[in-house]
Order: sequence, then structure tokens, then C-alpha cells
Amino acid sequence: RLRKIVNKTHGADLSILFRSLPLPDQRLLFDMIDDVEQKGILFSELDEDLFIELIDGMDPDAVVGILEAMPNDDVADLLNQLPEETASSLLERMKKEGSDEVEDLMRFDKDTAGGIMNTDFIALNQEITAKEAIEQIQKEFADVEMPFYLYAVDEYGNLVGVCSLRQLVVVKPYTPLKAFMTTEVLSVQTHMDQEEVAKLVARYDILAVPVVDDSNRLVGIVTVDDVIDIFREEATEDILKMAGVGEEFVETKSIFKSTRIRLPWLFASCLGGIFAFYVIGHFEDSLSRITYLAAFIPVIMGMGGNIGTQSSTIVVRGLATGRLHIRDIWSVVGKELAIGFILGMVYGLLIGSVAQLQYSTLMLALAVCLAVVCSMSVAALVGSCVPMLLARLNIDPAVATGPFVTTSIDIISVYFYFSIATGFLGI
Amino acid sequence: RLRKIVNKTHGADLSILFRSLPLPDQRLLFDMIDDVEQKGILFSELDEDLFIELIDGMDPDAVVGILEAMPNDDVADLLNQLPEETASSLLERMKKEGSDEVEDLMRFDKDTAGGIMNTDFIALNQEITAKEAIEQIQKEFADVEMPFYLYAVDEYGNLVGVCSLRQLVVVKPYTPLKAFMTTEVLSVQTHMDQEEVAKLVARYDILAVPVVDDSNRLVGIVTVDDVIDIFREEATEDILKMAGVGEEFVETKSIFKSTRIRLPWLFASCLGGIFAFYVIGHFEDSLSRITYLAAFIPVIMGMGGNIGTQSSTIVVRGLATGRLHIRDIWSVVGKELAIGFILGMVYGLLIGSVAQLQYSTLMLALAVCLAVVCSMSVAALVGSCVPMLLARLNIDPAVATGPFVTTSIDIISVYFYFSIATGFLGI
Ligand SMILES: [Mg+2]
Ligand SMILES: [Mg+2]
Ligand SMILES: [Mg+2]
Ligand SMILES: [Mg+2]
Ligand SMILES: [Mg+2]
Ligand SMILES: [Mg+2]
Ligand SMILES: [Mg+2]
Ligand SMILES: [Mg+2]
Ligand SMILES: [Mg+2]
Ligand SMILES: [Mg+2]
Ligand SMILES: [Mg+2]
Ligand SMILES: [Mg+2]
Ligand SMILES: [Mg+2]
Repeated sequence: RLRKIVNKTHGADLSILFRSLPLPDQRLLFDMIDDVEQKGILFSELDEDLFIELIDGMDPDAVVGILEAMPNDDVADLLNQLPEETASSLLERMKKEGSDEVEDLMRFDKDTAGGIMNTDFIALNQEITAKEAIEQIQKEFADVEMPFYLYAVDEYGNLVGVCSLRQLVVVKPYTPLKAFMTTEVLSVQTHMDQEEVAKLVARYDILAVPVVDDSNRLVGIVTVDDVIDIFREEATEDILKMAGVGEEFVETKSIFKSTRIRLPWLFASCLGGIFAFYVIGHFEDSLSRITYLAAFIPVIMGMGGNIGTQSSTIVVRGLATGRLHIRDIWSVVGKELAIGFILGMVYGLLIGSVAQLQYSTLMLALAVCLAVVCSMSVAALVGSCVPMLLARLNIDPAVATGPFVTTSIDIISVYFYFSIATGFLGI
Repeated sequence: RLRKIVNKTHGADLSILFRSLPLPDQRLLFDMIDDVEQKGILFSELDEDLFIELIDGMDPDAVVGILEAMPNDDVADLLNQLPEETASSLLERMKKEGSDEVEDLMRFDKDTAGGIMNTDFIALNQEITAKEAIEQIQKEFADVEMPFYLYAVDEYGNLVGVCSLRQLVVVKPYTPLKAFMTTEVLSVQTHMDQEEVAKLVARYDILAVPVVDDSNRLVGIVTVDDVIDIFREEATEDILKMAGVGEEFVETKSIFKSTRIRLPWLFASCLGGIFAFYVIGHFEDSLSRITYLAAFIPVIMGMGGNIGTQSSTIVVRGLATGRLHIRDIWSVVGKELAIGFILGMVYGLLIGSVAQLQYSTLMLALAVCLAVVCSMSVAALVGSCVPMLLARLNIDPAVATGPFVTTSIDIISVYFYFSIATGFLGI
């Protein structure tokens, strides 16, 4: 009965179940799966660690049997996760043709079009007729993952056109492909960043995009299911970078690993804090005369930090989604500065009033108010400028929102506050 | 010549160009577009404000002509953006059948399966033969947006099966659909949240998912191109919520609008800051005796704040991507607490050493060290607990990383620090 349930369950669902099962139970369930394709789906959906554990100790021939039934882009991804020795011994056992393709794929950087493309696609010579094309599709391309676009190539394998299954059925049987194919084909090069590829697929609402090499030879396609994974992966990457927790989701790994990834990012914040400590030390005299100056440190730092995070988040996400452009840097930064100033006025007055109520010292209240205005304006400025400048320098702007910006805003806020207070109160 | 370029450009690309053009130029370019479908694509890709401006003053019949060539889910989305009057006058001009469908779609909540589904799909009676099916597809369903899945329905319009174009060609012509269709069809209900729908499509790598009403009647399909948009939209929503800047990207709107959206979120941070101010005021005596206690406020607050952001970001993103589950709350929180404690020890010793170097007061150094350990442990605890608990209460956990968690961590850090210092130094 369990076997029946397992075989009715989609591989992707089993992969979620596997996360919470001990290894022996995983093996037991795995052996119950009859369909080799479901096994393949399970393979590619499993977390890296689980996959390596599961495969270790399995009969290599059984593993190879599963790999051969999978799309070869997924096989390349899996083998890239394995130790080099295991990977090459599996490759050797695979059928010649398939293993060559997989080896080629493994050479591409995993974040590029080449690294995510599939080499099973329908390429037809532009000279053949619609009738011949239909025959070829039924005979040779029966196992293509996504048979929606038919790419036309010339004698050198160069991409020259595209047509749809539907067109093939509608035209007269003896029309050659080149007579009705669309010759303006959107294609990407193997080294294009996966995020750019994904954006193209999203912009044009297509189901796959052809990948060509440097000499325009058609070498693969990137399919929409992988594009979805890229968007989710890139969003995760940006979110984690912004918080300073690396690039990949590691929570499923060990405490030690997580600690090691988070440690360096906190170091930036620690250095900044120590710097702020010396800044305050510099004003120790003022502080010893008016102790309660210290009481306003958290609110001024907090307001600056929060508006800075708002600004940099908007810029980072705006750049990632294409709503903002690097060329608009001055209008964006100007706008943020204006918003920071207005909000600074609002909260400066509010916090200044609290200061006045508590200590009835007008100059102190004014100093607090002005410090809030300055800190929030500068924070909005820094928070929007830094990611824009990084993007212009071709550095990923997501790192800018992390501890670096936060920490520098902390230091600037504290410095402004004490400078203004010292001046206003004449201490 | 310009006309030629415009007509070779995809509507999605024109929409980007339109953002940087003044309205008269937009109109000029728009009138140059010959293909009504490209006009439709442009319509649905334009930002809300631009679309409303562009459509205002256009001939209503021309607008209707474009709307009728668009998928009706996109039409419903557009009309939902317009003032009610304009929308209903456009609906009246549309062909009866189309306008009814669009009106039905407009009734669904825009974040549900009903709100994103398309009502153009291929539904065939399960009793007809493969041959009849092929004929129907060629005749009746020639303009369906994504003709990849053929849904089989019974006499009441209930969804009972699915088959592919390919199967139709392979089986004998007189086989009825019900003899070879797959009867286990994944479907979603109209009121399912769009994020759940998108996750299903991503998990099973499908190109469309059928939508049924409460009585299992097939009413629409959600296509993969819209699923991509949902993932990007939801990621933006989560990122903006985490930073406390609303839910939708507003940077393209006016300074006033942006200010209004960001104001309330900063209020939380302001209240927290004022609270911290009273906490420090409470320790004014200690502070007046040892002034330089104040110098450590920023570093202790900063370390707590940053590790708290790390923890809550990991939990929020983990829950959104399905890598973490609410039921694992104790293991996740326990792990975060452990990481917070370890990192707290590391940085506590480091910052304590700086304190010792600077002031050569062992008790102060110890107090600073312990305060860092406590603040970072508590921050990791709060940062991971709060989003988990919110998720369990069915509240969106993304709001938790915003100013709320940050601010409460600020207050807790300051309180711990002064309590410990006062105790250790006996002041
Ligand atoms: Mg790959
Ligand atoms: Mg799109
Ligand atoms: Mg693929
Ligand atoms: Mg895939
Ligand atoms: Mg990126
Ligand atoms: Mg990347
Ligand atoms: Mg902070
Ligand atoms: Mg809608
Ligand atoms: Mg998928
Ligand atoms: Mg659609
Ligand atoms: Mg769409
Ligand atoms: Mg959401
Ligand atoms: Mg939502």
C-alpha cells in the first residue's frame, strides 16, 4: 500500500518528505519508486547534502540509469555537486553521446546561460519542408523536454529562424521552413548571466530561449521552468546579501557552517561600532558635563538606520526589477534626499518636543531636532547613493544594504549629533 | 523609418521606452504601431500611471479594439486600474461575450487564482474522440493563448482529465478522450492565494494550471508567464515589507506619496527610540558616575541589530521558499539561539578587549563582553521567534523584520547593557 502511495506521489513532493526522514527510510522509499523519471525529478529537487548522502552507496549502474532519463542540464547540475571522482566515474558509465553533452555543459559557469541550458531541443534544417519537419519531430525528437518552438538552422548549425508546431500544421505540406519561419529570433549567448536570460524570458512571455555560441551556432535552450527557479534563487540571493548572510540559503546546514558564513559580515558592524565608540570618546568632555546627552543616542541612530535601510532597499530592488536605472542616479538620489529631509523634519520636531518636555532646555531640544534632520537626510543620501554607485561600477548593489551602509550611517549619525549638541550647548 | 523601427520593437520594450518619454511623444509612437497585439502587450506592460494618462483622451473604440485582442485576464487587470466609470463604459462597448468574461474576472480578488486566471483555454468533452478533438482545436480554439494542455470535462463542465496535444496525435483517431486522458489532474480553486498557485506551478514544472470553482467546474487557467510575474511581485513585496516601505514599489510616484508610505513605519522606530531614551534616563545615575559607559551604546546596539536582522531574514525567506516550516519552530529558533550565542562570545571577547585596552577596568570590560553576548543571543532569539510565531498566526512574517523587530532589539540591548554594567561596576 505504501508502495502505491509513493508511486502516485510526484517526485517534487517526495523531495520535501525526504527532508524530514532518516537516511534508511529515504532509501526504503526510494527503492519503492517504479518510474525512473520520478526518481530523476526527486534527484534534481533534493537538497545538495541529502542527494550526496542518498547516492553514496547506491549501485552506480542504477544511478546512471536514472541520470540517463533526466534532462541533461539537470544531470550536469547534479554532477557538479558531487566530488570530482564520483562524477567522472558516473560519466564514464553513461552512454557515450549523453556523457559528452553533459561534460560540455559542466564546463560552463553555473550562473550563465550555458550553465542552465538544456541540449535537447528541436533543430531542423531550414531547407526541409513542413511535412518532413513533422516526420522528423515524431521520429527523432520524441523525448524533447519542451517541444514548443522549432528552431531552424542553416548548413553550419547556425540559428536562422523559429516556427511553432501550429504553423507547421497550417501551411501547405511541401513549403520549406525558410519560407514561413520567423527570421527575427531572440537568442542569448552562452556566457550571458542567468539573471539577464531570465529577464528576457519574463519580458517577452516566452517558454524557452535559444542559446548560441560565439559563432551563432545553436547549442541549447533555456526553458521557462528553470527561469522560475532563477528568479527565486536571485531574489533569495539579494535578500540574504542585504542582510549580510552570504548568498545561499544555509539554514539547513550545520550550526558551525552558518556561524562561519555570518561571522565576517558582523565584523564590519563590529568595526563600525568600535569606531563610533572612539567618536563618542572624543566628546567625553561634553558628555561628562551633560550626561543625558547619551539618552538620545539610540533614537538618533535608530531613525538614521531605518530610513537608510528604506532608501537602499528601494534602490536595490528597483535596480533588480528594472524599475530604476543607473542613468537616473541623480533624480533618484535627489528624491531620496528630499524624502529624508521631509521625514527628518517630521520626526526631528517630534523627538525634539520629547526632549523639551523632559529637560526643558531649548538648546538641547533644538540640537536633538537638528541632529535627527541631519542624520535622516544623510542616511537617505548614503542609502540611495551607495547602491547606485556600486551598480555603476558593476558591483552587485545588494551588498550595499548590508552591515556596511548600516554601520557607516550609525557612525555618521553619532558624529553629527555630538558635533551639533556640543556647538549648540556651548560645551 | 521610425515607424519601421517601432513596428519591429516588441511591446514590452516599448513600455520601457515610454517611461522616459513625455506624453505627446508617447502618443505619437503609439499611433505608429500597426499590430493591435503589440499595442495590447504595451498596454499590459505599462506602469499604472502611464497607462491611465495614455488612455485618457484616446478614442474609446480604438481602446476597445485593443482590449478585445488581449487575453482577458490582462484586460480585467487593466480595467481594475481605471476609474469605475471609465471601466464600465469600456466594458459596455466591448463585444457581449468578451465583456461578460472580463466582468466575471474583475470580481475576483486580484491576489487569488481567480484574479490571475485566463478564461481562454481548451476544454473538450471527455466523450469525444481524438479525431473530433483535433478538429475542434483547429476550428474553435485557434486563438487560445497557451494551447499546450487539453482539459477534459464532463457534461456539467467539471474537470475530469487532461491530455497533451502529442497524445492526441499518437492514439488511434476514434479513441474517446476518456480512454487515454490522465485522470489525476492538479487543479486549484478560484480563491487560492496567487503565491500558492505559483508555488505549485514551480514545483511541478508545468506551463499552466487549471482553475475550478467551488463545484469543480473548470473556469480558467493560470499560465506560467503570469507565475513568473507573481514570484517577482511577491519577492518585491517581501523585500519592501522587511525594510518597512509598504508593499508595492512606489519610487516612480511622487515624493509626497513615497513620504506618506514610509512615515508610519518610521513611527515604530521613533517610539522605540523614545522608549530607549527613558530606559537610559533610568540609569542616569550610573551614567553620571562613569560617563564613558555611553561610548559602548552604538556597538552593542549595532551588533544586536545586525544579528537580529540576519536571523529574521533567514526565517522570513526560508518560510517563503519552503526551506523552513512552521512546525520546525523549535529546532530553527534553537539553532539561531546557538549561533547568536557563539557569535556573541566571539564579538563579546573582541569588544571587551577593546574596552579593557582603552579603560583598563576589568569589570567594565567584563560587563561590555557580557552585554554583547546577551544582546546578540536575545536578538537572534527574537529575530527568529517573531516571524515564526507570526507565520503560525497566519500573519505575513515579512513585516517582522521591519522596524518592529529592529526597534525592540535596540531597546532590549540597551536595557541589558546598563543593567549588567550597573551590577558589575556596583554603581
Ligand atoms: Mg547547469
Ligand atoms: Mg512577462
Ligand atoms: Mg531544464
Ligand atoms: Mg528544472
Ligand atoms: Mg543578482
Ligand atoms: Mg546571481
Ligand atoms: Mg540599527
Ligand atoms: Mg486579474
Ligand atoms: Mg521547478
Ligand atoms: Mg495570462
Ligand atoms: Mg502576462
Ligand atoms: Mg507574500
Ligand atoms: Mg501577496
